[in-house]
Amino acid sequence: MNPIQVGLLGIGTVGSGVFNVLKRNQAEIKRRAGRGIEITMVADLDTARAEAVVGRNAKVVKDAREIIANPDIDIVIELIGGYGIARQLVMEAIAQGKHVITANKALLAVHGTEIFAAAHAKGVMVAFEAAVAGGIPIIKSLREGLTANRIEWIAGIINGTTNFILSEMRDKGLDFDVVLKEAQRLGYAEADPTFDIEGVDAAHKATIMSAIAFGVPVQFDKAYVEGITKLSSQDIEYAEQLGYRIKLLGITKRTAQGIELRVHPTLVPCKRLIANVEGAMNAVVVQGDAVGTTLYYGKGAGSEPTASAVIADLVDVTRLHTVDAAHRVPHLAFQPDAMSEEAILPMSEVVTSYYLRLRVADQAGVLAKVASLLANAGVSIDAMLQREASALGGKGATQTDLILLTHTVREGTMNEVIAQMQGLATVLAPIVRIRKEELA
Amino acid sequence: MNPIQVGLLGIGTVGSGVFNVLKRNQAEIKRRAGRGIEITMVADLDTARAEAVVGRNAKVVKDAREIIANPDIDIVIELIGGYGIARQLVMEAIAQGKHVITANKALLAVHGTEIFAAAHAKGVMVAFEAAVAGGIPIIKSLREGLTANRIEWIAGIINGTTNFILSEMRDKGLDFDVVLKEAQRLGYAEADPTFDIEGVDAAHKATIMSAIAFGVPVQFDKAYVEGITKLSSQDIEYAEQLGYRIKLLGITKRTAQGIELRVHPTLVPCKRLIANVEGAMNAVVVQGDAVGTTLYYGKGAGSEPTASAVIADLVDVTRLHTVDAAHRVPHLAFQPDAMSEEAILPMSEVVTSYYLRLRVADQAGVLAKVASLLANAGVSIDAMLQREASALGGKGATQTDLILLTHTVREGTMNEVIAQMQGLATVLAPIVRIRKEELA
Repeated sequence: MNPIQVGLLGIGTVGSGVFNVLKRNQAEIKRRAGRGIEITMVADLDTARAEAVVGRNAKVVKDAREIIANPDIDIVIELIGGYGIARQLVMEAIAQGKHVITANKALLAVHGTEIFAAAHAKGVMVAFEAAVAGGIPIIKSLREGLTANRIEWIAGIINGTTNFILSEMRDKGLDFDVVLKEAQRLGYAEADPTFDIEGVDAAHKATIMSAIAFGVPVQFDKAYVEGITKLSSQDIEYAEQLGYRIKLLGITKRTAQGIELRVHPTLVPCKRLIANVEGAMNAVVVQGDAVGTTLYYGKGAGSEPTASAVIADLVDVTRLHTVDAAHRVPHLAFQPDAMSEEAILPMSEVVTSYYLRLRVADQAGVLAKVASLLANAGVSIDAMLQREASALGGKGATQTDLILLTHTVREGTMNEVIAQMQGLATVLAPIVRIRKEELA
Repeated sequence: MNPIQVGLLGIGTVGSGVFNVLKRNQAEIKRRAGRGIEITMVADLDTARAEAVVGRNAKVVKDAREIIANPDIDIVIELIGGYGIARQLVMEAIAQGKHVITANKALLAVHGTEIFAAAHAKGVMVAFEAAVAGGIPIIKSLREGLTANRIEWIAGIINGTTNFILSEMRDKGLDFDVVLKEAQRLGYAEADPTFDIEGVDAAHKATIMSAIAFGVPVQFDKAYVEGITKLSSQDIEYAEQLGYRIKLLGITKRTAQGIELRVHPTLVPCKRLIANVEGAMNAVVVQGDAVGTTLYYGKGAGSEPTASAVIADLVDVTRLHTVDAAHRVPHLAFQPDAMSEEAILPMSEVVTSYYLRLRVADQAGVLAKVASLLANAGVSIDAMLQREASALGGKGATQTDLILLTHTVREGTMNEVIAQMQGLATVLAPIVRIRKEELA
């Protein structure tokens, strides 16, 4: 089957990410989607920039309508942003029977009702995973993963810029203005940061989640929006003393009186997982009546994290557009004829780092022997701790615990060194070995 | 359209949850799925127990094959567990052209290849969101939400029993045997806890995630499995002193040599979000080349959390089985003709709690006035903090900060009280008001 042809409108930060990730992971994405996916046309006013990204792999045009008019294009990705031309182009693409993928939260939060109605009437899909919380599949989780539930509330850190600023204000005790400048210098805040710091961006996203959670139309004009510009580092410190952290949350909640939809700085108990989401990361907590509390965490912005969401939508649309229902999503994610024969490694071939505890005689030279066995095997030591062992059988005073953290090494090698150390007369008990992962 | 008819095999803890949640949220689930979903037949050896749950709402039979033979049943839910009869019934249901939903990780980790091949050949779906991490939509996230990515590794707390035991061992400094007994008493561990504490259950789940992440067949026999039975509280304490927490992780990782698939106690840096997942909760970290790190957190077991996943699969299958592709998943989760008109509340009607900071004159009677204004409006105080204000314009010595946390109150009421307090001569600066949410 020929690859499905995609047209990309706007190739800035996110667009470049989409193009590059799609190219880099081409083979693996095809194995999942059951069909190749190719961006064959790109529209951007800056054609030179566009050509620098796509090379000869796609046709670059200045006029987006050339893409919309092309009958070979099945899917249009809108990454222009804003309510103006983006809205017109999305509506025209739908009218032409194209499936549309967009990361444009402002457009959907304000004009979603019109857009979804047009798409429904025309029988095309409008997919927008990238519009909320970047790479985190929160739209899919809400729309498909939690369908059993009566959603009770959603609360999310859904703007990375403001979470970065709040984290810095707390860490360093600095004021808003100072940190904003630093964030701009580091690229975490835009030159005009108004939409972020005033909470508008978060409110766009909260509006979309509210609609999906409760089955109401998008109603951005009803959202209460308060940003972080007036927050002082003093209040952040007082809150901390009371056991709370201040986060800019997008909240939507079902109550007996109606639906709450609001964005504002919020005190959250420090012990909640979401209170510990720092820097530019995003996280969304969803409370459902059956599932209880679930949380989704990841990067909410940036070129490739956002591209991850756009391409997930591409695969979704391709699977639906191309394959019959029962075979839409392969059982094991990859198409049955595209499974890999890559081997599962035996444990001895696994490379990891280790925690080792040796109960040793409390006498000179023990550490030297242990260390030299490790060194001979090429195992280097990351950290060491020596502790008086709890008295055992009256011999406590003459024993001690030697605790080592190693750097990474093959498990097979580690097994050999442990056997050698175990053979030392000064090692008095079976050596405890627990593996360690940095997960970084 | 008539409701889609579902047969349930096995109505224990999870089965009851599925029946109850499906009934309780019937209307909302239908609004999402575009069609009613009804469990019309239930098979259980204990027919009395089954009848106690379903009443007259479903036909109870002893022989599961009566359900499989019924041409009106489109979907069969298998909640029997184990490799024996469950395997036979799943294969027979597939052969009869039924879609199958199962929570049976053991069955899929060991016999998945055979089952998925049969389903593929027959053109039916086998859905298994509930098999890994209970109510967390991790299968959907991996299989559909992260399809852009070359997955690098997955590490998960995917067994609640062992995470509960490890959390207790750490919190209370108790040994494994003691905590296991407590866990059994509280219902967090089964009478025969072998599969949990020896890591077998986690390895079943890791095996399934490994297949989905890397496009390899399920290969439980290749997994390295080590449980927590030999862990001492002493090592948990030493690890803590070194900045690490010990978690039973299911890990699968892509390396140049092959795929790692292993379950064992693991030291994780305390500052990682996953290290702070306590009690019986589950969490899975997924590292993708485009999206970076994402984390999914929630209840990994229990009647209704697991039911949440089973019913999400029911909705998925219903949407696919019933509706044309473009309209499969409604844009806003609910069908366009089933949107709600529930109103978004004005902010003045929102009920929440508050952090208030008042810069006041440092003199007798100020607190009394503030407190009485709050009391008159029915606002009760949760906590109070008084701090010397930083010297301002030379008047520092005569000013102080009064910080209050309130219990919940209508925002409109709070606005009125703030205006009243602001009118006091002893309140020297604009009152700071930040909302507070417990998110519990």
